[in-house]
Order: sequence, then structure tokens, then C-alpha cells
Amino acid sequence: MSPALVFVASFLLLIFSGTLLLMLPRCRPEGLPPATWLEALFTATSACCVTGLNVVDPGTFWSRTGQCVILGLIQAGGLGIMSFGAFIALVVTRNIAAREAATFRDLLESDRLGDVSGLIKDIIAFTLVIELVGAVAISGLWSHLPLGEQIFYSVFHSVSAFCNAGFCLHAEGLIGRELRPEVWGGIALLIILGGIGFGPLHNLREIASHQFLKIFMPQKILAATGRMRVSLTTRIVFRVTIALLVGGAVVLFLTELGRPVAGQTIWQQIANAWFHSVTLRTAGFNTIDHGQLTPASKLIGIVLMFIGASPGSTGGGIKTTCFAVAILTLRSVLQQKSHIEAGGRTIPQEQILRGLSIVALSLTAIIGCTLILVIVENKPALFLDHFYEATSAFATVGVSTGITPSLKPLSQLALIATMFIGRIGAVTLMVALAGSASQAVYRYPDERISLG
Amino acid sequence: MSPALVFVASFLLLIFSGTLLLMLPRCRPEGLPPATWLEALFTATSACCVTGLNVVDPGTFWSRTGQCVILGLIQAGGLGIMSFGAFIALVVTRNIAAREAATFRDLLESDRLGDVSGLIKDIIAFTLVIELVGAVAISGLWSHLPLGEQIFYSVFHSVSAFCNAGFCLHAEGLIGRELRPEVWGGIALLIILGGIGFGPLHNLREIASHQFLKIFMPQKILAATGRMRVSLTTRIVFRVTIALLVGGAVVLFLTELGRPVAGQTIWQQIANAWFHSVTLRTAGFNTIDHGQLTPASKLIGIVLMFIGASPGSTGGGIKTTCFAVAILTLRSVLQQKSHIEAGGRTIPQEQILRGLSIVALSLTAIIGCTLILVIVENKPALFLDHFYEATSAFATVGVSTGITPSLKPLSQLALIATMFIGRIGAVTLMVALAGSASQAVYRYPDERISLG
Ligand SMILES: [K+]
Ligand SMILES: [K+]
Repeated sequence: MSPALVFVASFLLLIFSGTLLLMLPRCRPEGLPPATWLEALFTATSACCVTGLNVVDPGTFWSRTGQCVILGLIQAGGLGIMSFGAFIALVVTRNIAAREAATFRDLLESDRLGDVSGLIKDIIAFTLVIELVGAVAISGLWSHLPLGEQIFYSVFHSVSAFCNAGFCLHAEGLIGRELRPEVWGGIALLIILGGIGFGPLHNLREIASHQFLKIFMPQKILAATGRMRVSLTTRIVFRVTIALLVGGAVVLFLTELGRPVAGQTIWQQIANAWFHSVTLRTAGFNTIDHGQLTPASKLIGIVLMFIGASPGSTGGGIKTTCFAVAILTLRSVLQQKSHIEAGGRTIPQEQILRGLSIVALSLTAIIGCTLILVIVENKPALFLDHFYEATSAFATVGVSTGITPSLKPLSQLALIATMFIGRIGAVTLMVALAGSASQAVYRYPDERISLG
Repeated sequence: MSPALVFVASFLLLIFSGTLLLMLPRCRPEGLPPATWLEALFTATSACCVTGLNVVDPGTFWSRTGQCVILGLIQAGGLGIMSFGAFIALVVTRNIAAREAATFRDLLESDRLGDVSGLIKDIIAFTLVIELVGAVAISGLWSHLPLGEQIFYSVFHSVSAFCNAGFCLHAEGLIGRELRPEVWGGIALLIILGGIGFGPLHNLREIASHQFLKIFMPQKILAATGRMRVSLTTRIVFRVTIALLVGGAVVLFLTELGRPVAGQTIWQQIANAWFHSVTLRTAGFNTIDHGQLTPASKLIGIVLMFIGASPGSTGGGIKTTCFAVAILTLRSVLQQKSHIEAGGRTIPQEQILRGLSIVALSLTAIIGCTLILVIVENKPALFLDHFYEATSAFATVGVSTGITPSLKPLSQLALIATMFIGRIGAVTLMVALAGSASQAVYRYPDERISLG
């Protein structure tokens, strides 16, 4: 059994268990009938994939028990399908196959392959600390509730934000709260940290400790601990993330400014544009009604969702590094270079192939899902909303124009499949299905083809 | 002045001259006012770019003189911006810069760089012969007209089909004529040949002559003329073209079968699906009303338009070879190979970079144009039609849901710019703007980045 297959299988098992749990009568408020298969499957998939699309309102449809199951599924999914997959692979195969190991090493941005379980513990500790601090920071939002309730709501939304799950226990989302610092500050920061992922943050923390140690330790002993440098992935992730956050907010502010909502101040509009830019790339919370957005904002939203968050994070999309590869490729072609360079390093050809594959497969998945939705629903005027929902599912974003609950069962099943494919990564799925082929040692002679 | 800049400039000059000519009063039927700037510019750009989008009906808006101007612009554009650009570069700079030469060599699929003007003459002769034969073959469509008229209509539509221009002098297009062999046979074949381009056809002709010579010439003399083989580009172009033609027809037949038009026979539906598949990839003729297509057919149409025709042809899109690079890349990643192989050859990394750039820039151009259309028009329900029109303009296809004439001037200007960018190739435009940089001789050390 290949590691990739173990990883897909374990994820399917998580969704299946979650579905069964959510079908228990006690997961529903007293006196109400249990959830149907489709409702439970959709919610479990959405929670495990940290997507946040819903066919029912999670705040009223599920009991507190049901909401705790969802919280567990979000946390399990959010701790990273990558670390989970690598861990399972370690247990099952007793050694990580070379290729999987390389992927996991990427995730952790460390050249030490040594103690994988130690690193997973590190990820878990790191996640729990941030979520705990986050829960305290945003608890002011529910200060009107009894203490027990306040704690539950704070923890649920902190986990949901850091894991980029976007599940919200309020039917109206965060609409009307865009000026609360807990929203534009606390929740936004949790989303951004979750979207950057463990690798780059761990890399920065290591460098910070190293700088701190310099003050106390002799230079010679320090040199023996090895070089410490900001990795290329870390630099790319931070630059692209900042550019997309700021650029997205500015563009969304401009495209929506054409029709300001009555009674809204400029500060509310700025706060909405900022939060919208933060949430769109993968989180799925909302302070505005997405169904009311202009077509231009929806299209820009689709582009931002497609790019998504950073690798090894709880977010989706083609990832910021893959987007950077496309940008860097353009720069190389313009400069007539045959290699991709970034920050004094060359990106290997194998990674360019992977980048092109990710873009092609992601486009195929989104177009395929949209095609199923438009064929099943056959409402030409709603095309953009179907396109938006399909992209939201694939990029595990979870923003919605509000049409998901009223879609036909076949469309909802298509969204479930798309969330799954989007979360575990189309390429990983394909590798899992294809099995591991032997590495080729020959190389055919070059032949240029005509590209136009 | 770099060759790429000469090429862009000469193309701009052609459009500008065409616009001025079309503004002459004699280009309009007697008694009618001259065309406006926007009408003339749109028509001239559409003709030079062999797109076929129109803001006016070319059959009634222009006089016979005007239609002759359009015919001339189509022929000039259709003889290939590549051969035109290379020819101008040869005249102006007296030698073709290494990079341009390589591109031109690709086009001709020949390793002889020798007599470029001879090859251009070859292209012109080849084009005129096919168009002449085509005109005779489809002349039956206008047998009810006087001889002079019949000749003009036959020549106009033969040139328009082979150059994939899609200009049609009948307001209803070819609707209702889908069962005429001149349409599903003659015009379809002209479109397919034009979309394959000179390179692969020339390659096959050379091999055929070589096989023919074998019969008469001693083996030794023949060996001295060099190896003759089907090039990788030729093989890719034919395989992808056939797959897209057949696959497109089948899929379009299935997606439209859900709502058969009253009174249509199964043969009409098959003929329509076939012609639609042929015309969609870049030609722009139509035997059905595109405005009435299901959303699914429109979305599949957008995908087929995006892929487009073959390199060095009169068609647009990212090109069949670029599409093949994406497919081959996927195969390589699945087989865990670090090189792209096809037919016993390796495709160089430089070309993969170029392929990824073409895909990224094409998506950007189409999304940008769609964005302008939806912002200017602001009709959410028409999103898919705007998307369709923008893709049609970029891929120089020219199919239309019928909304182009009623778009606001700013949207029409956006379509003009998109047709231009799509025709000369986004990458070529960028290279032209960036100028030629010096080839790098160093290479930085490799560093893998995390892709997700
Ligand atoms: K999400
Ligand atoms: K065309």
C-alpha cells in the first residue's frame, strides 16, 4: 500500500466516521428527526475538508453534541492532512517512502528527516497554543452569553478560523460586526496565520531563537548547530500572502464602491473589503452577503479563491507558491532565461512540471464541477453563482452566494466530491491512483515543438 | 528595433490602414453615411486578427468595395502574422535575430534556415491553391446567384474559412444549411486545414514526395538528401486535432441533446454537433444560434476556444501543442518522471516554461476582458455570455451569443484590444515590450519549494 493511498484512505475514513456520528439522533436538537445521509455526509466532508460550505445552518440544525463533532472533524482535518498522512504512513509502512518524505520535509522546511513524530507533536502544540490564545482574544464577541457558552463559542470560532474552516454558528455570519476588532483583527489574524501554515512560521521561529542564542553563546559552538536561513518557501509565502491581502482588499474596495450599501460608513466599507480579502483566499467567514456582490467582485473572488493559501497550511487552492512559480516563469520567459530563478536560487524542472500539473488539474476540477452544476440545475442566469460555488468547494473556501442548500442532490454530491478532491490535492489523488512508478534513468534526445 | 517590435508595429499598421480604408464613403452602400471610427476599427481589427466578431452585419452594412477591403485584410492577417513578421524583420534588420529565427524555423518545421523569402512564397502559393480549390468546391452554395456574384461569394467564404476568419456575408450565418456537403464537408475541411497550419502539412508533403522519389531514384542518391521524418510537432498536432474534433462533436451532441429543437432530424443534430466542434476551436462560422445554447454547451465551447488551433496556423487559443504539453506534463508527474517525453523525444525545459506562461497569460487576458465587460455592462445574468464573448475574442474565434453589437463602446474597445492581444500572442507582445535581454550563462543552486 503506497503512502499516498494510505493518506487518501485515512481521510475517507475520517469523513465516513464523521458522517455516521452526525447521523446519531443526539447530534440534532431534541424533538427533531435525525439528519439525512446527504446532510450528514455534506457536513462531515465540509468539516473534514475545512471548507465551510453548508446545506443546513450549523448553528440551529445541529445540537451542541453535533457541533462538538463538527469541531472535532475540523480540528482533525485542520491539523493538516499532510502531517496526518505522513504519520499514518509512518505507522503503517514503518518508513516513509522517499517521495513522500521529500514532501513532508518541504512542509516542515527542515532538512532533518529524523524525528517525524516529534515534528507532528510540534505541529499539534503550535496549533493548540495559537487556537487557545485566539479563543481568548476573540471571546469579547460573545461577552453577552453565560460563561460556558462564551467559552464554547470562542473556542469553536477560534479553531474554525485558524483551521480556515469557516464554520460559523451564526446564521448571518459576521455581518454587521465588521468594525469589531475581534473580527478585523483577531479572527483575521487567526485566518492569516492558519493560511501561512506551520512550515514558514516554524522557519521564522527557528531563526528568531538562533538570533536570541547568539547573544549568549560563543560563535564557535553556534556554528556547529548549522546554518540558519530564511528558506525560499518562507520568503515566497510571505511576499505573495502580503501582496494578495493588500491587493485583494484594494481591488475589492474599488469594484464594490460603485454601489455602496445605504447607511454604511467608509470605515465599514474598508473593514469589509479587508475582511473579504482575508477570508476569500480560503477561510470562508463573511461580513457581507456574497449573493449581493457585483459580477466583477465575484469574478475577482473566484481568482483569489483559485490561488488560495500556502502549502502545508489548512487552506486550499493551487497555493501561493504555485502562483509564484507561474509569475516567476513569466519573468524567466520575458528575460529569455531557460531556468526559473528566485532569490538567488534555481527552482528545479520537476517542480515546474508539478506546478503546471496543479494548475491544469485544478482548472479541470473546477470546470468539471461547474459543468455538472449547470447541467443539473440548468439555470443560465445563475451561471456565475454555480461557478463561484464550485470554485469555493474546490479551493475549500466555503463562501457561498447562498444557493447551496437549494441545489439538487446530484449537485450537492458533486460539491462533496469537489471539496474532497480540492482538499487532498488533485495531484496527490492522481499519484495515489497511479501507484508509484519506477524512476526513469534514461533520457530521450531533445526535440523542440512549435508553441505558436 | 527588435524583430518582435517590428512584428507588432507592422500588425498595428495593417489594422490602422484597414480602419482608414473602411471609413471611406465608398465602403458603404450608396446613400448611407460612412462608418464611424469604432465600427471601422472594430471591423478592421476583427478582419486582420481573423476573428470574425462584428458590431455590424458585414453582408449589408458594407458595400462590395468594403467587403473587398475586408477580404484583403483577412488574407493579409491569415497568411500568417508569423510569416509576415519574419518577412518584415528580414527586410528591416537584414538578418533575423537568433530567437525569432528559431520561432520561424518551428513554424516551418524545417531545419534549413536558408531561403526565408522562398519559404514565404511557398506559404503564399500553398494558401492560394487551397483557397482556389476550396472556392470551387463550395461554389454550389451560391448556384442561384449570377456568375460574378457566385464567384465573389465563393472566394470570400473560401478565404474566410481557410484563414479561420469566420466572416460570413449572410446575416443568419450558415443556419439551415448544415446538411449541405459544401458546409459539413467543404467549409469544414477548409477550416480544419487552416487550423492545422502550414508547418505540419508541409512536413507531410515533403515525406510524401520523398516516398514518391524512392520509386525512381537509387537509394544512395536519396540518402544524400537527408533524413525525412514526421516531426514531433506534426504528430502532436494531428493527434490533438483529431481528438478535439471527434471528442468535441460527441460532447456537444450529448450536452445539447437534452433540448432538441422542434422539427430537427437526428442527422441535422449530428451535422450541427460536427460543424459546431469544427468551427468552435477557432473558425467562428455557425450553423446554430449560439445565444440559444445551454450553459453546459457554452462552457464546453469556452474550453474548446481556449485550446484553439495549431501553432503557425491562422487560428488562435493557447494552441494544440501547448495543450499537449499540459497533458504530457500530467503524465510525467504521474509517472514520477522529471522530464516530459513524447514519441521518444524529450521536450526541453525552456518550452515547458513557455507553455506555462502562455496558459497563465491567456487566462489573465480572458479574465481581464471579462472583468471589463461585466463592470461596464453590469448585468449579472449575462455573465456567461460576456465570458463567452471575451474568450471568443481572445482565441480569435468570432462565435457570438449575439450581444456584441449592443455592448457599450468601452466594452467594444476592450474586445478590440483582446482580439489584438490574442492574435499576436500574449507572450510575443510581452517579449516585444520587454526587449531582448542577454542570455544568462550562470545558474544558481537548486532549491525545492513547497507546492502543497
Ligand atoms: K474554508
Ligand atoms: K475566427
